[in-house]
Amino acid sequence: MYDQLSNYIKKTIEVSDEDLSIIMSFFKPLRKNKNELLITPGQISQHTYFVIKGCLRIFFENLEGKEVTRYIAFEGQFATALIAYITKSPSTEYIQALENSEILYITHNDFNHLLEIVPNWRKFYINYLEKAYVSNANRVMSITTLDAVERYHELLKINPKIVSRLPRKIVSSYINVSQETLSRLKAKLDPQ
Amino acid sequence: MYDQLSNYIKKTIEVSDEDLSIIMSFFKPLRKNKNELLITPGQISQHTYFVIKGCLRIFFENLEGKEVTRYIAFEGQFATALIAYITKSPSTEYIQALENSEILYITHNDFNHLLEIVPNWRKFYINYLEKAYVSNANRVMSITTLDAVERYHELLKINPKIVSRLPRKIVSSYINVSQETLSRLKAKLDPQ
Repeated sequence: MYDQLSNYIKKTIEVSDEDLSIIMSFFKPLRKNKNELLITPGQISQHTYFVIKGCLRIFFENLEGKEVTRYIAFEGQFATALIAYITKSPSTEYIQALENSEILYITHNDFNHLLEIVPNWRKFYINYLEKAYVSNANRVMSITTLDAVERYHELLKINPKIVSRLPRKIVSSYINVSQETLSRLKAKLDPQ
Repeated sequence: MYDQLSNYIKKTIEVSDEDLSIIMSFFKPLRKNKNELLITPGQISQHTYFVIKGCLRIFFENLEGKEVTRYIAFEGQFATALIAYITKSPSTEYIQALENSEILYITHNDFNHLLEIVPNWRKFYINYLEKAYVSNANRVMSITTLDAVERYHELLKINPKIVSRLPRKIVSSYINVSQETLSRLKAKLDPQ
């Protein structure tokens, strides 16, 4: 299960075998059952997760308790409560396993330690931040410039797995419409 | 005018006097008049800007041509078409001087060169990305969880200068409401 992660790292940065084994030694395995929460609002974020099998969802709630999904990490992707990690403040978000999941995690302390001892780990973190930034900036654009139908089409184009693999409730919380609106929309777009 | 930038850099990263003068040597001055555009959609982004005097606005348009303001940089802040820089693709955004502005700029080539030759410049870029990420992630949260009144209150709390210094048109494009909605909202909240 470690191969998936080491391949990801080797694809992202130039790294010697020695540095790679130092990096890998800080990642530990973890299993989570479907629907289990890894962090809730108010908690201090302590881990960065890499999905081996299953998937993790990062979401938050509005004042009326409506869920908004910010990010979904499938196999081979990272997930963390990044705002909390950066600002060193309690999380405002949930991280949840949406399926029975196998995960590797690294503590923030060890992640920071790697930034100091493995020079190219900063390049890795830069790559991580760049991807996270682009993903979020595109969310701002699509939420403010596209209507529900266009957001659904965009999701089908950019991240079809979210629609094909996850329950309708998650899809609607991702494109920020009610489940009823999504059902009407799907009925219109994919007539049986 | 270079002091403002060198102080910013010294506050952000540990840097030797020698490295600091290498860094500063890559920044060049630029003046822009009120309303002048520094980049438009479709153009290749080539510069990162630091505002000495005045302010820069980053915005995009939805399909009906309605402007959405993503970020405003006042004195002592950086601005760049970051998605275009990261993805090495043409800009999807505008950068505009909202007032007569004095700016320092560095080309992306020189910025990348600094990442290679000044070790702590990676720390600087990490700090830049972290701030940009948090700012955008908070925008996603506020757009999806707050109503217009709450977004206006949040803006007054987090970035009051946008309300006190800039035209109503810009404020409404920042909190993503029409100018009419903002006027009604202000009349209700700040009765004369």
